[in-house]
Amino acid sequence: MKIAIAQLNPIIGDLAHNTDQILAAVQQAAAGGARLVLTPELSLCGYPPRDLLLRPGLIAAMRQTVEALATQIPPEVAVLVGFAEPNAGARDRGEKPLYNSIAWLENGQVQQVFHKQLLPTYDVFDEDRYFEPGQAINSLHLPLPNGQQIHIGVTICEDLWNDEQFWGQRKYPNNPIAQLKEAGVDLIVNLSASPFTAQKQPIREAMLAHSAQRFQVPIVYANQIGANDDLIFDGRSVAVNRQGALMTRATAFHDDLVWLTYDPQAADLQAGLIAPAIADINAEIWAALVLGVADYARKCGFSQAVIGLSGGVDSALVAAIAAAALGPDNVLGVLMPSPYSSEHSISDAEELVQNLGIRSEKLAIGPLMSGYDETLAALFEGTEFGVAEENIQSRIRGNLLMAIANKFGHLLLSTGNKSEMAVGYCTLYGDMNGGLAVIADVPKTRVYRICEWLNQHPEVILNQVQAAAKADSIIPRNILTKAPSAELKPGQVDQDSLPSYEVLDDILERLVQRHEAVEDIVAAGHDLTVVNKVVRLLSRAEFKRRQAPPVLKVTDRAFGSEWRMPIASRWTGNLVPQAAIALTPSTAA
Amino acid sequence: MKIAIAQLNPIIGDLAHNTDQILAAVQQAAAGGARLVLTPELSLCGYPPRDLLLRPGLIAAMRQTVEALATQIPPEVAVLVGFAEPNAGARDRGEKPLYNSIAWLENGQVQQVFHKQLLPTYDVFDEDRYFEPGQAINSLHLPLPNGQQIHIGVTICEDLWNDEQFWGQRKYPNNPIAQLKEAGVDLIVNLSASPFTAQKQPIREAMLAHSAQRFQVPIVYANQIGANDDLIFDGRSVAVNRQGALMTRATAFHDDLVWLTYDPQAADLQAGLIAPAIADINAEIWAALVLGVADYARKCGFSQAVIGLSGGVDSALVAAIAAAALGPDNVLGVLMPSPYSSEHSISDAEELVQNLGIRSEKLAIGPLMSGYDETLAALFEGTEFGVAEENIQSRIRGNLLMAIANKFGHLLLSTGNKSEMAVGYCTLYGDMNGGLAVIADVPKTRVYRICEWLNQHPEVILNQVQAAAKADSIIPRNILTKAPSAELKPGQVDQDSLPSYEVLDDILERLVQRHEAVEDIVAAGHDLTVVNKVVRLLSRAEFKRRQAPPVLKVTDRAFGSEWRMPIASRWTGNLVPQAAIALTPSTAA
Repeated sequence: MKIAIAQLNPIIGDLAHNTDQILAAVQQAAAGGARLVLTPELSLCGYPPRDLLLRPGLIAAMRQTVEALATQIPPEVAVLVGFAEPNAGARDRGEKPLYNSIAWLENGQVQQVFHKQLLPTYDVFDEDRYFEPGQAINSLHLPLPNGQQIHIGVTICEDLWNDEQFWGQRKYPNNPIAQLKEAGVDLIVNLSASPFTAQKQPIREAMLAHSAQRFQVPIVYANQIGANDDLIFDGRSVAVNRQGALMTRATAFHDDLVWLTYDPQAADLQAGLIAPAIADINAEIWAALVLGVADYARKCGFSQAVIGLSGGVDSALVAAIAAAALGPDNVLGVLMPSPYSSEHSISDAEELVQNLGIRSEKLAIGPLMSGYDETLAALFEGTEFGVAEENIQSRIRGNLLMAIANKFGHLLLSTGNKSEMAVGYCTLYGDMNGGLAVIADVPKTRVYRICEWLNQHPEVILNQVQAAAKADSIIPRNILTKAPSAELKPGQVDQDSLPSYEVLDDILERLVQRHEAVEDIVAAGHDLTVVNKVVRLLSRAEFKRRQAPPVLKVTDRAFGSEWRMPIASRWTGNLVPQAAIALTPSTAA
Repeated sequence: MKIAIAQLNPIIGDLAHNTDQILAAVQQAAAGGARLVLTPELSLCGYPPRDLLLRPGLIAAMRQTVEALATQIPPEVAVLVGFAEPNAGARDRGEKPLYNSIAWLENGQVQQVFHKQLLPTYDVFDEDRYFEPGQAINSLHLPLPNGQQIHIGVTICEDLWNDEQFWGQRKYPNNPIAQLKEAGVDLIVNLSASPFTAQKQPIREAMLAHSAQRFQVPIVYANQIGANDDLIFDGRSVAVNRQGALMTRATAFHDDLVWLTYDPQAADLQAGLIAPAIADINAEIWAALVLGVADYARKCGFSQAVIGLSGGVDSALVAAIAAAALGPDNVLGVLMPSPYSSEHSISDAEELVQNLGIRSEKLAIGPLMSGYDETLAALFEGTEFGVAEENIQSRIRGNLLMAIANKFGHLLLSTGNKSEMAVGYCTLYGDMNGGLAVIADVPKTRVYRICEWLNQHPEVILNQVQAAAKADSIIPRNILTKAPSAELKPGQVDQDSLPSYEVLDDILERLVQRHEAVEDIVAAGHDLTVVNKVVRLLSRAEFKRRQAPPVLKVTDRAFGSEWRMPIASRWTGNLVPQAAIALTPSTAA
């Protein structure tokens, strides 16, 4: 029996577009002799639909679309399609209004509907907000032309992620995989929308292998690809046989149609094509961010992007990502030197523009700085140059970039990294401006490593960027070796205000990723004064992050929908004396 | 038996501060002879703590604090305190890590801990993210000096909100109130943190009356007061006797200690003090917003605010709210006329400054507009004046306001209303700038009504604003009668781009508040073209709202944590032809 995985890239809420994609994949699969076609979780509306699920019109339209789609499926093909089904009687029983469902389409009809059992409500997930957990054990008997039947267990994403042996803990009381094994299924399929984080794929594959082996059942896992706002879906659908060996792997970060064969005699899957694994974390994050930018732009209707180029490493990386995502002709880099800008900030940015082959403009901001100084002269009389004046420079640049974005219909990409977003070393309404925060989940130390990797692997961008062939390295060497600086006052460098990025990023990883307590971070070898400072900066920058653009998620805790911190709050940890954390007016902004 | 409700205003995460408040209230209650003291839900950490609940240090500190607090409670007083308790064994059983709990403190110890049964996970609520629902029926037997015992049912907020007779539907399968009645309790207490929305209090009181009457049991309801970021808690704790009659009501929008007497002979509550109801919705929203601004400023460490004054109705209302919240001396209004500003925009703003007695500054932005024009001249050559140039003006003002906020440690308040936030008739990084969006949940038509009401009730602000006594009306009449205009180009008025605000606000109420389908809105009498336009504008402005400051919530659906819409999406409704909703680059920003 041939199975095809349609690894698709939906547009959230665009039922017509998504249905067309599904149908095209099904027709291709049917032409190739597939008996069963899998699509990702909620493939009809795309994942995550968020509060669009509260719109009754969308729910009604999904049901109509599923039924219409069923009539268009070629004969002798069964298709599993994800949609949200109303929970009839929810109001009488005190349940949630919807199910996260799969429709089995065959012979012109919806044959059966299955409901997701395990509903993630943590990290980026809010499924309890919308869905009632399914109680039934989900399986179907698929007749083959020879009269045999294959008994297939049907699961949705999280249903697969609760193996207490693999994780050493349970997140939910039941394990649907164990229940399906008990029900005697031959094969388990899983329709997923599993967001990308770096180095997650080996864990997915190990988990699948573990469950397959433990329950002696082959598993086919169909994942969504494509970026939707902050979430990137990397695809890499896989299948494992009953011994847990990898039988197929779809491409990463690209839509795909993958073929599998289930052999009823052997009661197992046969080996198919296995796309190469991505061993290098830098390569993986690079590819994810390129997809993130390309899809956000496309799905919002932009073909061109604009980026402020400071001559620093962050904007250099974002420009390279944008050039790879949109093509260098579609990227405009804007240099905006001030009287405090160093010589190299301009020459480095110009070299980058050359290397990437992007368009560029130079707008000096000195006259506008003087303009603000004059406008505010009477009001600011007798005060010292400080954060207010530093921020004005950043906000002039932000204003110029938005003017260009508005005038020419470009998408402004913001260039801040995760380290500075964490401690507030960024200007709200200034360098934070943009429709998408491309690297705001990438710590500064990782930004450097990705740039080094890019310079060693120019081939990932050379197709798009012919000019780079001429350069020694895509990211100019001086950008990677000079001391990082915001250049908002003479001689300023980041380490005037912050610990070294190696130290800062380790403390932040412990605080943000792992929610470690201050005493544990100190016990790991960090200085208490430094840790307390970082804790305080992290907490005080909450108001800035609240107003940030969507942050492309690449770690297991980005500053997005999985970081829901209060602003007007005072918890900073145990080791901080209360007096030290009393809030003072936040002049940095 | 005397019961005291401590209607408290916690600071999120500040255990020391919150404990001091609880202890002060308990001591006052003990001095007055109270046998039982009630505090609000999660009174130790404040509600909502959000992802601070993921910090193990906070959870451990709460347990320690509860135990320490128990030792400080005066003898013969029982206190119910809200905190989050770890769910031991959660990882083995597949449950959530915490309970939303109440500790019964008495005789120097934690006597018993009760767990919330019904966990809201809709609208602004995310309780399934953190908490496991309690299964036990929660009650305690409180001995009286005469040897009698009162059997008291203990519930937490949502536990009380699932009466299927009152609502005509269930949100949860069980009703803890019915269970407690069956268990034979004499009295039910409820510890709440119920966010304010306009005209919610009569519903709360009707629901309490219904449940008391239905189950023939008196109910005491203790609510939190105080604003935490976007959520305002209005207090108005109440008690109803077994016939459902109102026995007491605490003050609105202010902390309070309320006394009740339970008569064991009559097995009912006796009548106590009843604070007056607020009949006028405008008065209620006004008071809520004043508390929202006062608490956000205080809890973030600000004593002074800055506001851009355009001469329009929105900034006039926000300035009046700020003057009432912080005192007129602590409010700085900044007039920033451009060459497109009308005469009256300046004179109206100046009259407002006079009436409110606030400080003011005037900064003309013409020179900076020329500065941007010159800086961008080469790049923009051959293009027409448009949205880019309009936005530059707004962003110059935003930049000046932030410079002042940064320089003097003022809190910038943004002044946009809900109607313009909905359709994107506002400039991101311009007039949207601020730490708090004061009236962004108030539709434009309601902004006018609150201003009219304020002019009829100058007494609500006269204490703070002596100068107003001299004025005919606090909000200058001309501000309320002239056509609303952004004044970003000559002769511009809002209704050039938008339907009348009466029409717009009705459509928006149907779309945002009620999630009505386009066909239903048209059936209610609106023009299809207009509705389609509003649907499209609402959807396209999502990227702006994502970067807005916290919005003080006053309706049952604000643009905050209860509006979780995707940005890169294409669902707009059934009646919109697909071609019309294809996204084009969003030049308006």
